[in-house]
Amino acid sequence: MPTRHKIILLAHGSSDPKWCHTFEKLAAPTVSAVPDSVVAYMELSEPSMDQVVAQAVVDGFKTFTVLPLFLAAGRHLRKDVPAMIADLETAHDVSIQLAPPVGENPQLGLAIRDVVEQTLQASNP
Amino acid sequence: MPTRHKIILLAHGSSDPKWCHTFEKLAAPTVSAVPDSVVAYMELSEPSMDQVVAQAVVDGFKTFTVLPLFLAAGRHLRKDVPAMIADLETAHDVSIQLAPPVGENPQLGLAIRDVVEQTLQASNP
Repeated sequence: MPTRHKIILLAHGSSDPKWCHTFEKLAAPTVSAVPDSVVAYMELSEPSMDQVVAQAVVDGFKTFTVLPLFLAAGRHLRKDVPAMIADLETAHDVSIQLAPPVGENPQLGLAIRDVVEQTLQASNP
Repeated sequence: MPTRHKIILLAHGSSDPKWCHTFEKLAAPTVSAVPDSVVAYMELSEPSMDQVVAQAVVDGFKTFTVLPLFLAAGRHLRKDVPAMIADLETAHDVSIQLAPPVGENPQLGLAIRDVVEQTLQASNP
């Protein structure tokens, strides 16, 4: 059986359930395009990264990439998430690679510019 | 003198100064393309929205659009920011419009998909 690799699209999470709804819509094109990818939340929302990793291990996954759907890396991505990943690797005997946040790719800055220009044109036709 | 309209690109802010550096790079194409636009932070980083509005009023601006560079709207954008905006409108006798966050535009979800695919290809050539 070939090694299966799981992609975790990591979002922050929010106490506001509407946030998750917007976020799921935002992540939907990625989830559709990237095989074995799923959204998980760092805190406040479910599924948590713990829950997703535990289920994936049951399903036979041994390696993971965590790809943060964050605009920039702050304390969460520099400290909290690496610590959570280290704990998960030990607990489940798996390998988890943390990728840079999507916002560090210059293409995202260009896309934000286009969206801002569209939004301003729509509000001031 | 024509009415001048200020665009505030509102970011969350972080206790990590590197976050702001990444964020400024991410916002740079927008700041370059959109006249009279500037980044301001909701909390933890400077310039704050208060500081930007106060200076813009001195510079002659009377109307503003706050455009959140957030992926999704949670409690901050639904409650905290509207309350901050209402206070600023009263304090400075200005009009401030709050636009939807960039992440609510479907184009951003497609851009995120492209960036995620690029990132995964780069890590698994």
